[in-house]
Amino acid sequence: MWCKIKLSDVIITRLSVYLRILSEFEEWRRETVSSAEMAKITGFTDAQIRKDLSSLGQLGISGRGYDVKRLREVLSQVLGLGNQWKVALVGIGNLGSALLAYPGFKEQGFNIIAVFDNDPGKTGKNRKGIIVQNVRELAATVRSAEIKIGIIAVPASEARKVADNLLKAGVECILNFAPLRLKLPKEVKLRNVDLTMELENFSCFLTNKSRWKGSL
Amino acid sequence: MWCKIKLSDVIITRLSVYLRILSEFEEWRRETVSSAEMAKITGFTDAQIRKDLSSLGQLGISGRGYDVKRLREVLSQVLGLGNQWKVALVGIGNLGSALLAYPGFKEQGFNIIAVFDNDPGKTGKNRKGIIVQNVRELAATVRSAEIKIGIIAVPASEARKVADNLLKAGVECILNFAPLRLKLPKEVKLRNVDLTMELENFSCFLTNKSRWKGSL
Repeated sequence: MWCKIKLSDVIITRLSVYLRILSEFEEWRRETVSSAEMAKITGFTDAQIRKDLSSLGQLGISGRGYDVKRLREVLSQVLGLGNQWKVALVGIGNLGSALLAYPGFKEQGFNIIAVFDNDPGKTGKNRKGIIVQNVRELAATVRSAEIKIGIIAVPASEARKVADNLLKAGVECILNFAPLRLKLPKEVKLRNVDLTMELENFSCFLTNKSRWKGSL
Repeated sequence: MWCKIKLSDVIITRLSVYLRILSEFEEWRRETVSSAEMAKITGFTDAQIRKDLSSLGQLGISGRGYDVKRLREVLSQVLGLGNQWKVALVGIGNLGSALLAYPGFKEQGFNIIAVFDNDPGKTGKNRKGIIVQNVRELAATVRSAEIKIGIIAVPASEARKVADNLLKAGVECILNFAPLRLKLPKEVKLRNVDLTMELENFSCFLTNKSRWKGSL
């Protein structure tokens, strides 16, 4: 069941993409899927997909591709889904509020159970069933609830300090939305969500499209 | 100056990552950088980086690596930066408000110049200097302003219709935050921002870490 390979960020991202495709195939009541079909949808090469999936065990059925249901179960398990995770959210401005209201997190077992801010106008208020705490209480709350995942949605100038406090309190994974690249110890799992990178993809496309003639 | 290869989404993302590293190296006043150094920071292989960059022209200096400033300029140009792009934002709830306030967009030349919502409590109001319009006005506004980039920040149930309307009005690139996978004609450049995929990375890490012993 477990991977035979070291799961780098890049591989994990591909596994997440495969999982999404398999969920769609399951909705369409498809029983099997080939690596070629998955390659067509994802843009990854056929060989890459077969290599990734073979590292998870003997999952292919010769001449028929992969069993959709079985492969989805294996991927879910490798990705640690089906578990419930406690999450701390720091910063409840517009972005933090949007993240707190985002239904996808809870659906996948990521439960924001603590919210922190340093604005006295926000602390003590009930937001989606959670009382916003002052950031001064972060360490005690995160430690006693054994929260391992933190989301940073504070301004860039505050992000470094918030990250340090989360790590000191035992958080091991940080999802950073502050517009800076945090540099954290390498044992910390850090993901920076950089929305401008998505838009760069567009500017690249729009700038170069006359040369590509719709080949993308 | 131009790429000799077809720029797939995967390559563009790598170019964006290289650009960020080069910006940091420039801040540190480093004049040259080797592909090995870039590999260490990014996790991409040395060979991959050299291949990507060689497709942009003769940029390496034998035995010295790449000229930081020159490479950054080339990447900026290939990524279409330095241009100004008009962007339409649809949906001004929490997430839309956060996106409108996000300073990174404007800094990189992505200017949200039109905002739409279907809530009469929001239309007509001034948000960050922009009067929120009813979605009924989307087609006319987007067409007359020749907006090519749309951001969808509406509930899943509305996203499909909004995407169709944006495309009919001439939009070519869509950044979708609605929690569903939009299926659009392949000539449309679509990026789905799926925040749960980031958290899956964490659950995978937390679930498997005892086996990895910090090797990640």
